[in-house]
Amino acid sequence: MDQLIKQHILKYFKNQGSAEVSLAALDDAAVIDDTVFSTDSHTVQPLVFPGGDLGSLAVCGTVNDIAVMGATPRGLSAGFILEEGLSMDLFETIVKSMGKTAQKAGVPIITGDTKVVEKGAIQQCMVNTSGIGRRSKALERNIREVKRYRRFPQRWLLDSNLHAGDVLLCSGNIGEHGIALLSFREGYGFDTKIKSDIAPVNKLMEQLLVEGGVVSAKDPTRGGLANTVNEFSEKSHVGIMLYEDAIPIPDGVRAACGMLGIDPFEIGNEGKIVLGVVNEKADDVLRVLRRHPLSRHAAIIGEATKDIHGVVMKTSVGGRRIIHKPLGDPVPRIC
Amino acid sequence: MDQLIKQHILKYFKNQGSAEVSLAALDDAAVIDDTVFSTDSHTVQPLVFPGGDLGSLAVCGTVNDIAVMGATPRGLSAGFILEEGLSMDLFETIVKSMGKTAQKAGVPIITGDTKVVEKGAIQQCMVNTSGIGRRSKALERNIREVKRYRRFPQRWLLDSNLHAGDVLLCSGNIGEHGIALLSFREGYGFDTKIKSDIAPVNKLMEQLLVEGGVVSAKDPTRGGLANTVNEFSEKSHVGIMLYEDAIPIPDGVRAACGMLGIDPFEIGNEGKIVLGVVNEKADDVLRVLRRHPLSRHAAIIGEATKDIHGVVMKTSVGGRRIIHKPLGDPVPRIC
Repeated sequence: MDQLIKQHILKYFKNQGSAEVSLAALDDAAVIDDTVFSTDSHTVQPLVFPGGDLGSLAVCGTVNDIAVMGATPRGLSAGFILEEGLSMDLFETIVKSMGKTAQKAGVPIITGDTKVVEKGAIQQCMVNTSGIGRRSKALERNIREVKRYRRFPQRWLLDSNLHAGDVLLCSGNIGEHGIALLSFREGYGFDTKIKSDIAPVNKLMEQLLVEGGVVSAKDPTRGGLANTVNEFSEKSHVGIMLYEDAIPIPDGVRAACGMLGIDPFEIGNEGKIVLGVVNEKADDVLRVLRRHPLSRHAAIIGEATKDIHGVVMKTSVGGRRIIHKPLGDPVPRIC
Repeated sequence: MDQLIKQHILKYFKNQGSAEVSLAALDDAAVIDDTVFSTDSHTVQPLVFPGGDLGSLAVCGTVNDIAVMGATPRGLSAGFILEEGLSMDLFETIVKSMGKTAQKAGVPIITGDTKVVEKGAIQQCMVNTSGIGRRSKALERNIREVKRYRRFPQRWLLDSNLHAGDVLLCSGNIGEHGIALLSFREGYGFDTKIKSDIAPVNKLMEQLLVEGGVVSAKDPTRGGLANTVNEFSEKSHVGIMLYEDAIPIPDGVRAACGMLGIDPFEIGNEGKIVLGVVNEKADDVLRVLRRHPLSRHAAIIGEATKDIHGVVMKTSVGGRRIIHKPLGDPVPRIC
């Protein structure tokens, strides 16, 4: 995917403007004219699964991409492609869920498009959500707080903002979305209690910004935690040390991953945030996280350091293991 | 489609915010925080056709939706869904064309997303483009000019702005996009010289706004001119009289439509604008249109009037004919 994007897409979209954060940054969203702008196409199968559906996924995916830039999501678009003959009941379930999730997040769906294609041209229904966001008072407050500890704070929470000494936090349990989908879809039935963690994190992000000290944030979706921390490390030119024991993984996810030979760190999540926080504020941010229902299991999971290159994990048994960027998708069509 | 959107989508996306122009307006784009925001999913088949391809179509579709609101398009997103095994040569043709068209329009592609799905889950490749735009000096100038003739000019070029007495203009030949695609796809081969009219109209729109006097604008894509003028009439609560003789239709389009029994007024275009202009400025705007290479064949095609309800056409033979909103799509998968 990395190769597809860099070799077949980016080279044709070069040098085309002066966005503050452009496509080349490959961050969660772009920034132009102080507007944050993001897009995501959603192809999940099946359309309804434990803990969510295409609709809630589509809304949260885009709301979260904007929120982790430090912006307040202001409006969403919905671009549907429907297969002729799609059950209207199923479609309404999806649309209703989008409306409900958007309301929960406080981000209205303000523009849309619908295309109907003949049977076989698309599998049931796919939806693109794009979104726009703005700078908020909470973001300005966060930057003022970062400024107490860092000379030149960035204007947005970019992947490239980490400095050696910054602390990495994860807002909660990882692996639930991917394992819930895989288990439900393939009928493994390991643990029917595992549900997707789909949730809009924008309100939680706002609380964290009000506390202040956050320099980077990312939602660990495709490629999971492993991809997120590698993006941080690459773009910030800093090593990252993770503490395996500290990373919150539910027993059900751990058991399923063990049986299937899947790395829980590579599984996509849809309601989590990985944060880079200045050292002096890490405990305060953790406290705010643990008070919020979406992040009760939050933990400090690592640190940025000059002592190593790339991402290394201190394992439970006292060893060290390199965490690579995932090459393929261990669970396809989960988003 | 109208029914699908109103009965199965809009009701779930209601009352969700305070956008200046919301989803319920069903205009070309939404407006929130003075940012214009639009989305379009593109499912055209085949991916390459006379005069364009999926890439140029996707860029122009969204650039034009923003431009006809009176805004300056500032940035685009590209959300690809690709079928596993899609020819990389074909995909690069599309992406290259997107980049080239974006450059021509002067609107950078600043954010994106790529999903690859298994063979059969999607036909080759579909792409969603969303875009954001801003108010421009040209738009402010246009509004100042409208204000000379109208007491309370609107802030954007909405479908609902027409008053009785306003003049309708069309920027050029209609029907080319749909007929080019249909002819090429079905191998009718009526007139191989008919090419799609795909073009970004944002720079042309800017010139028209600098001239001033424009109150409404719309690109007559799906449903063609018939749909556009019906939208104007419905939303502005005013009758529209069209002059059949004045509407520019190329001979090839006319011949093809005659043979296939298709109404040229219902065929989608991808590089045209239908404008509502205050009476006093209609000739000036027409002059600016005819000077621009994209609109040499521009014409005054009708007027808004209190004397009739809905849309009526004075036919070439001296009769009158009601122009209804198209019910179905005479040519599927053209955008």
